[in-house]
Amino acid sequence: MMRTPATLRAVALDLGATRFRVAVGNGEGEIEWRVSTLTEVERGVERVLEGISTVIEQAVGAAGGIGRLAGIGVAAPGPLDPWKGVIYTAPNMPGWDEVHLKEYFEERFGLPTLVGNDANLAAVGEHRYGAGRGFANIVYVTVSTGIGGGVITDDRLLLGANGFAGEIGHITIDVSGPVCGCGNRGCLEALASGTAIARAARELVASGARTALAGIPPNGLTAKVVTEAAYAGDEPSRTILRKAGEAMGVGAANLANLFNPSRIVLGGGVAINAGPIFWDAVLETLRLRALRPALRDLEVVRAGLGDDAGLLGAVALVVQARAD
Amino acid sequence: MMRTPATLRAVALDLGATRFRVAVGNGEGEIEWRVSTLTEVERGVERVLEGISTVIEQAVGAAGGIGRLAGIGVAAPGPLDPWKGVIYTAPNMPGWDEVHLKEYFEERFGLPTLVGNDANLAAVGEHRYGAGRGFANIVYVTVSTGIGGGVITDDRLLLGANGFAGEIGHITIDVSGPVCGCGNRGCLEALASGTAIARAARELVASGARTALAGIPPNGLTAKVVTEAAYAGDEPSRTILRKAGEAMGVGAANLANLFNPSRIVLGGGVAINAGPIFWDAVLETLRLRALRPALRDLEVVRAGLGDDAGLLGAVALVVQARAD
Repeated sequence: MMRTPATLRAVALDLGATRFRVAVGNGEGEIEWRVSTLTEVERGVERVLEGISTVIEQAVGAAGGIGRLAGIGVAAPGPLDPWKGVIYTAPNMPGWDEVHLKEYFEERFGLPTLVGNDANLAAVGEHRYGAGRGFANIVYVTVSTGIGGGVITDDRLLLGANGFAGEIGHITIDVSGPVCGCGNRGCLEALASGTAIARAARELVASGARTALAGIPPNGLTAKVVTEAAYAGDEPSRTILRKAGEAMGVGAANLANLFNPSRIVLGGGVAINAGPIFWDAVLETLRLRALRPALRDLEVVRAGLGDDAGLLGAVALVVQARAD
Repeated sequence: MMRTPATLRAVALDLGATRFRVAVGNGEGEIEWRVSTLTEVERGVERVLEGISTVIEQAVGAAGGIGRLAGIGVAAPGPLDPWKGVIYTAPNMPGWDEVHLKEYFEERFGLPTLVGNDANLAAVGEHRYGAGRGFANIVYVTVSTGIGGGVITDDRLLLGANGFAGEIGHITIDVSGPVCGCGNRGCLEALASGTAIARAARELVASGARTALAGIPPNGLTAKVVTEAAYAGDEPSRTILRKAGEAMGVGAANLANLFNPSRIVLGGGVAINAGPIFWDAVLETLRLRALRPALRDLEVVRAGLGDDAGLLGAVALVVQARAD
């Protein structure tokens, strides 16, 4: 059997509360086959795992059989043990406590299975195949409803003592700032995420300020709506977007000072769609706040893999383990 | 020659703006010989390096000759290139720009020379011989005039792309907080260092508040004086110390969420002497602010090596490189 990474193939599973996706990917970062399906969490853990297994069987078939695969890589939500492949709890997936994914899929398919946190594996994907390719030290940040990410130092994913490292969304940047979903105050996520932008918009409208957002019901005030209003010229919406970018810039400065990466890769729907009002604020704040040596070779770049980052990270995890 | 780390010896140099120290240490973390001397920066780089070399010659003699030594380890201040062993600039050491320490000592002594940032090497020392011994993931923080530190992940010192990683003192924790020496606002160093405590004391006295510190001239209001007043029962001094501890706790929560270490090792004169008012605030704030998974196996402990952490880290650097 040839052992160069390029010839290796893996099945990748990206498990989410709403949908799961299964793909066959190769060591060059190409996705050769893919399926996306509703997770239907309400069916319970066992039946969801059965459903996933059926799709993985299809993937194995598409890849030409078990013998053509290096293993299964799983990107899963929530705090998990990446060595044992156990999900401890999964946000928005009731009942998914202590789920032994690695064991389950290894018994079922007889293929080595590696599991990682979805944001961490997106970092691995961007490092290996995306906007961080070629750099040994990168930090990946995804800004969507929440903020997550992963850190690559010296070409390795930073896991920490228990695999929980890289909780970038929950660094405090404003000690007396707004309360975060995690219970803390002034987390990056509480200031720069889609949820934070939506909250700022609700507060704006509730205050009776003159804004194009006035009249939109609270649950219609999404980051997308604020972004559209900002680029249509609504000054208060521009301010909200700029402030989110400034908060992200403070977070980026912290990451620069702590990790001294060559690239900070920003992804996630909110960041990707937020345009120059947000991005200029990120860059300007980073330049003002980071130490000069940490800025020397640093670039902030857009993520390159979109929603496939996690899937491709799961592929990379398996391919890399096999190549080592 | 035996190759077990225990039999290896290294010369260690801890270079500071006021004093430099030279020691002979062994792979078990014992310092067998040491000298401490005034640096006298005003003599210029060349003569200071000559003076250091003279002391290193004595160290080589004390060790029983060049043949008994694995190399020279140097803990140096300021931003530096740890691979090339070049100091870019050294705070409080005028003229120390682009000083090629590695090259200089290798030519002079014919011994492999490894250079590291002093706070980073203190982290290495605590990891290998001190309060972090036995743990693969630790963060070391030194709280004195400023705040520095180093991060060990998976038993390796985190260097980042250019060797500048681990600038723990300059993470922003209060986006609108006081201005830091680095020019940024609300850095951990601006809120929890000896300098921050002294500044808070000066502001307190200037405000005319009732405090035991009243009447002490501004330059007498050191962290030590505030600590003494706090434990003598002065309520405003207790508040200053507690707030510094809370800021350190916010910083510790950020470190926990990002690095998921098993130990946060706190050292430096201010932290070591600040007593329970400070330490209780650190621990309580950490517990309130860090994510639960990151707290699971985390302990905050006192540094164990005192002022020798940097020297012993320099020894460890050489011994480890030789053992690899």
